[in-house]
Amino acid sequence: MARIVQKYGGTSVGDVDRIKNVANRIKAFRDEGNELVVVVSARSGVTNELIARAKSIHPNPSEREMDQLLAIGEQETIALTAMALQAIGVDAVSYTGAQAGIFTDKVHTKAKIKTIDAKPLEKDLKAGKVIIVAGFQGINDEGHITTLGRGGSDLTAIALAAAVSADKCEIYTDVDGVYTADPRVVKTAKKLNEISYDEMLELASSGSKVMQSRSVEFAKKYNVVFEVRSSFNQNPGTIVKEEVAYMEKVVVRGVAVDKDQAKIIISGVADKPGTSAAVFRALADANILVDMIVQNVGRHGVANLTFTVPQTDTHKAAKALEPALASIGGGQVAVHEHIAKLSVVGVGMKTHSGVAATLFEALAHAGINIELISTSEIKISIVIDQDRADEAARLAHKAFGLENI
Amino acid sequence: MARIVQKYGGTSVGDVDRIKNVANRIKAFRDEGNELVVVVSARSGVTNELIARAKSIHPNPSEREMDQLLAIGEQETIALTAMALQAIGVDAVSYTGAQAGIFTDKVHTKAKIKTIDAKPLEKDLKAGKVIIVAGFQGINDEGHITTLGRGGSDLTAIALAAAVSADKCEIYTDVDGVYTADPRVVKTAKKLNEISYDEMLELASSGSKVMQSRSVEFAKKYNVVFEVRSSFNQNPGTIVKEEVAYMEKVVVRGVAVDKDQAKIIISGVADKPGTSAAVFRALADANILVDMIVQNVGRHGVANLTFTVPQTDTHKAAKALEPALASIGGGQVAVHEHIAKLSVVGVGMKTHSGVAATLFEALAHAGINIELISTSEIKISIVIDQDRADEAARLAHKAFGLENI
Repeated sequence: MARIVQKYGGTSVGDVDRIKNVANRIKAFRDEGNELVVVVSARSGVTNELIARAKSIHPNPSEREMDQLLAIGEQETIALTAMALQAIGVDAVSYTGAQAGIFTDKVHTKAKIKTIDAKPLEKDLKAGKVIIVAGFQGINDEGHITTLGRGGSDLTAIALAAAVSADKCEIYTDVDGVYTADPRVVKTAKKLNEISYDEMLELASSGSKVMQSRSVEFAKKYNVVFEVRSSFNQNPGTIVKEEVAYMEKVVVRGVAVDKDQAKIIISGVADKPGTSAAVFRALADANILVDMIVQNVGRHGVANLTFTVPQTDTHKAAKALEPALASIGGGQVAVHEHIAKLSVVGVGMKTHSGVAATLFEALAHAGINIELISTSEIKISIVIDQDRADEAARLAHKAFGLENI
Repeated sequence: MARIVQKYGGTSVGDVDRIKNVANRIKAFRDEGNELVVVVSARSGVTNELIARAKSIHPNPSEREMDQLLAIGEQETIALTAMALQAIGVDAVSYTGAQAGIFTDKVHTKAKIKTIDAKPLEKDLKAGKVIIVAGFQGINDEGHITTLGRGGSDLTAIALAAAVSADKCEIYTDVDGVYTADPRVVKTAKKLNEISYDEMLELASSGSKVMQSRSVEFAKKYNVVFEVRSSFNQNPGTIVKEEVAYMEKVVVRGVAVDKDQAKIIISGVADKPGTSAAVFRALADANILVDMIVQNVGRHGVANLTFTVPQTDTHKAAKALEPALASIGGGQVAVHEHIAKLSVVGVGMKTHSGVAATLFEALAHAGINIELISTSEIKISIVIDQDRADEAARLAHKAFGLENI
């Protein structure tokens, strides 16, 4: 007997039949004698529908009211999932975020979980009930409903796993686990049995869409081991956990491609203190997330500054830069949207040399030009032409032998 | 400046445009300097949709989960209504039943309000905010969401009016107020300016669908004066309040027809103590609401027992009666579904004689047969052929001069 926290995403509970299917899966775990806390998301599409309805009333609705509205998506699925379990003879009870004692800070639409008071939940667990908890939502000290932002249901599951000292935490999704590369692009991609928190974090920030970084960060902080697996089959998934020594034997564990970035080049700015500060302060004030940054000093004290931003923010970025550049004596802005960021990630990089060289050679042989390079301790990211991104992913995958991992 | 509680029903907030319309109405009251607490229902149709979805998962869902599910209907409209007010510059904030401190007993799907802790609400009122409260829902001592049953949003409004000592309570609906008869049937029907709680109660139990009895009973108990009026125009409505002396000058204030009843005749039962008890205990145990009851003793110690039940329960009633009749030595059951109950209501009956005679004469002249009669202090109800019910309503309306009221 184990205490298991499971999370089912929006596609897994997308309609009445899928909810019944999830109920059957839960029953199988229950029948094995396990204690179960199950986190569910809103039916896929519901959250977007609610947002659209709100926007048709107010172009920029109050975030408090937005949370009050969005929370109903999960409240629907918890009740329906509990009913589906009861229909097959499983004693189940549903909890909203507030009822589950999930207390957050006051930041509406992207609240952080502060504490979880799991007492009522423990009582029902002891009574043998399967507990269905609304993902993505909580309550703040003043009794206002809050939501946790994108990927919030994963966060709910991982935080609950820590709060109830679960033996296992399983994140069910529509993919089988974490792959060495996107299997739709790289046919030889392999599912990983294990991956470290740090590798998972670097993959998430590199465009791999399996999970949001914050959930992984939370799991790392509280040392919650979790498994990413599919709700549509019985295959084992990928276990995400603290790095252990043998993981370093593998130099590169995954290749990720992000086509949603744009490159901005500012040329002809004065090479003097304060130039970069003015540029990036302007972008920060406009709430634009800057990813890779490279600065080259050219001749005659004139510098070029290159960086990437989300493609959706390019227009906003160009606009925010105008006054900033004027204040530092001018400079030209060029935007390249047709780029892709390719990253190779692996904790083994810490102890292996030549990783960058292997990657660059593989692309050079195919004539793929590298426009920008940025590295961290366990990741190398490069910017290349978007048209050649998939080909580059396949080349990198092969160069690091990931098909045999 | 007054403190006003308003309630808008499901058709008034049926879609985004109607929600905007309601917001404009609220703004007008706010601009006059009033303090406002506004109760809204779920969009019309939403509750039925949710029930259908639940039933497709479980034929008889747990009532606790049903409440958890149904509560989202109102939670949607409060958020959207608050946003619509904010869009036109009105500071508004939404409250779920739980957030508004509406504590109920533990009876899911038809909970009773026990207390309201209006402190948080008072704070926002003092801060000048318009408060939007979810009707129909509350929370019990254990933190479970409860719903109040049919007409629950009216009850929420009236209970809140008592809790915040409102100067006015306005129930907005899709009719202009309470009429002397159904205007679709009796063209000369008049809207009443005022009506007493007791008259309103008798009309409600007689098939007039303006409001559920329990909301009127609650208002009577806490002496909450309220006005029933339309959300689609600016006409004054009908004020419902404690009976005052001048009201008695009018003998009959309204005529109501109920076509949803069936008549059950039990003939040939022994005229001895315990016969009626056995019959009505059997119906009570089957949760069947019996309305009119008449017993005639025939010859040779054999009695006939006639009563009415909701048409939807006739089958269940006949089944429940079988063992009961067997236990008291037999009897025949006959069911007449094609009947109507016509009631005339007025506090003036207490002090006027000849009301019954006037009614019976009017129907006799038209050759309408009266099958059953039952009276209370302020009401006379009769059962007649359903095909002649509308005609009878027009005749009664005319006989009591209600077109000139």
